[in-house]
Amino acid sequence: MISDKMKEYVSKSSVIRAMFEEGKRLSSIYGEENVFDFSLGNPNVEPPESIKEAVSEIFRKESPNLVHGYMNNSGYEDVRAKIAEHINKKYNLKLTENNLIMTCGAAGGLNIILKTLLNPGDEVITFSPFFGEYENYVKNFDGKLVIVPSNTETFEPDLNELEDRINSNTKAVIINSPNNPTGVVYSEKLIKDLSEVLNRKQQQLSTSIYLISDEPYREIAYDGVKVPYILNYYRNSLVGYSYSKSLSIPGERIGYVVCNGDADDFNDIMQSLNVANRILGFVNAPSLFQRVIAKCLDSEVDVNIYKKNRDLLYNHLVEIGFSCVKPEGAFYLFPKSLIPDDALFAKEAKKFNLLIVPGSSFKCPGHFRLSYCISYDKIKKSLDSFDKLAKEYL
Amino acid sequence: MISDKMKEYVSKSSVIRAMFEEGKRLSSIYGEENVFDFSLGNPNVEPPESIKEAVSEIFRKESPNLVHGYMNNSGYEDVRAKIAEHINKKYNLKLTENNLIMTCGAAGGLNIILKTLLNPGDEVITFSPFFGEYENYVKNFDGKLVIVPSNTETFEPDLNELEDRINSNTKAVIINSPNNPTGVVYSEKLIKDLSEVLNRKQQQLSTSIYLISDEPYREIAYDGVKVPYILNYYRNSLVGYSYSKSLSIPGERIGYVVCNGDADDFNDIMQSLNVANRILGFVNAPSLFQRVIAKCLDSEVDVNIYKKNRDLLYNHLVEIGFSCVKPEGAFYLFPKSLIPDDALFAKEAKKFNLLIVPGSSFKCPGHFRLSYCISYDKIKKSLDSFDKLAKEYL
Repeated sequence: MISDKMKEYVSKSSVIRAMFEEGKRLSSIYGEENVFDFSLGNPNVEPPESIKEAVSEIFRKESPNLVHGYMNNSGYEDVRAKIAEHINKKYNLKLTENNLIMTCGAAGGLNIILKTLLNPGDEVITFSPFFGEYENYVKNFDGKLVIVPSNTETFEPDLNELEDRINSNTKAVIINSPNNPTGVVYSEKLIKDLSEVLNRKQQQLSTSIYLISDEPYREIAYDGVKVPYILNYYRNSLVGYSYSKSLSIPGERIGYVVCNGDADDFNDIMQSLNVANRILGFVNAPSLFQRVIAKCLDSEVDVNIYKKNRDLLYNHLVEIGFSCVKPEGAFYLFPKSLIPDDALFAKEAKKFNLLIVPGSSFKCPGHFRLSYCISYDKIKKSLDSFDKLAKEYL
Repeated sequence: MISDKMKEYVSKSSVIRAMFEEGKRLSSIYGEENVFDFSLGNPNVEPPESIKEAVSEIFRKESPNLVHGYMNNSGYEDVRAKIAEHINKKYNLKLTENNLIMTCGAAGGLNIILKTLLNPGDEVITFSPFFGEYENYVKNFDGKLVIVPSNTETFEPDLNELEDRINSNTKAVIINSPNNPTGVVYSEKLIKDLSEVLNRKQQQLSTSIYLISDEPYREIAYDGVKVPYILNYYRNSLVGYSYSKSLSIPGERIGYVVCNGDADDFNDIMQSLNVANRILGFVNAPSLFQRVIAKCLDSEVDVNIYKKNRDLLYNHLVEIGFSCVKPEGAFYLFPKSLIPDDALFAKEAKKFNLLIVPGSSFKCPGHFRLSYCISYDKIKKSLDSFDKLAKEYL
């Protein structure tokens, strides 16, 4: 009796559950400490102390009916104003609370953006490899996800193909930098070139093409690399931000959407985001954590912990013969699998108690994803298994 | 550039905003203390102290990565098990964590249920007057909301018309007791009769018709009235529960869906609810508050505060000539307007600084809704305005 759309998901989700059960099975045989689960993107670094302090300050000073009550569906005005100011300082912009809406993480943000923009059949472009949920989010509103490949030597998108694939049905382009699953950070030049393509096509087609930047990993960047802020480069731009990774609080579902004030139909978009937040059932982003993050805008998890993990794992894999683009952000590596069949490769890896995700899951076969948001010691211990795996093929 | 579906909402939402602005205008002229806003359902009773205590206990005893991290998209297993046990004790059932999924309030719960059940064109029946969001939730998944009227002398649904309107496209029936906007609690007899109709039609049509109970007001019931639990009466039943009102924490977006274990396609439904929670962008119900409510299952706001409000307002209105079904729950009154045109009546009420919602907003013209979740003193002060309003017509 469940809907046709959901039937497909349910059958897929049993595959994922099977993988999960397999992990549990391995743990029960070899001991959890000897199974190396690189499959999940659940941050292991602790949230900063400031979260706890903020909660206790709020409980001490603010009225419980304010803290836990309804507010405007867009979120508390004072919280939005503080975040706007924070963004303005960092990226030299002039946003106000009216450019922002608080959301249930970036996932909630992307959904209200797509509900706002898409008529059935409208197209949304993204670049492979990509976070598989984009396809589901677009399908929620009967849109069509169009996949443009990246150059697999750099994991930068193929802008020529992008230009070819844009047509009058193209409503939006989703980018994600620092990227899941590659860890690549899009350079300023790339963002400029991308903006140029979009501007050119908008003019040619007399249409609006919105650039949506999915940014749960914005603060997780290494080696001083700058992550360009798209509002500085492209007019029709929206950012879906999440505090899940920057503050290690993914369970709390807190983030925001910011829309460029110069975007086409800005007022309609902001009103629609507000209504979509309500009618999709989010109603508003969780209230206490809106107030918490407003007090933690200058806090961040210790990114060096992830960097140390990256260096250890990346250096070792390259040393033993894996080919991999060096990630400058997020907490993923996306090496080439040692045989073309990445699903088989992931299966083989299990023999050495390595749980990895085939690149096909991100529409980029011949690769695999490693999430290194696990403990340094566990990664260290896993290196031997990677050695054994590599020896089978190299 | 926004979608056709959202255009309609945005134009409607400017009407609501206009009302809101009007309230602000009145406050600026007459002073906030002299404007009587009965339009909002934002609980004014303070959350129980146990919320604060639970948070500080959790912060003291549990690991931050557990408290704020990802968990199964259905919610923490231990939390679901505790809630199941709590329900079992109260309603003599045998639920387990597998019958439950934690949601972003009842609004999130209803959305994942409808995403699970509806193919485009499927019909969902509800009884007028009803909470206007049901129409939006059903439209989110391209379903069609079919409205069956209630008897306006009792606000119990017309079960004959229900039976007439059920056809092979009918996927679900939504009920809401204690009811928004009438405050009426459905009796055990009514639930039994309703179940009989549904069972008969299921058999006749060889189909499954799910009964969905929207229960944000379950604990807000007066005079010892019992609110029947539909899982005890009907097999294909789901409850969307929320802690928003029982604990006065509507901003935190925490609730759950429970599905009867004997329901048709139970396993598919539970898996689909899990996936829908993820792909609609909720991902999971906010993590800290999942753990908080698990520690507050025996807590409740002081319902007597609402009861005192109801008694004061109901008794006075009836005394001065209003006709009103006496509400046994929730925090709403739904009297007849003193002229047939309820929109005009609401406009007239503003002359006496009374902000009320026309019954047409709940698809029941000729009435108006008063939310009495405001302070007792404010209600007392407002009585004079009701007197003046009534004098215009009686």
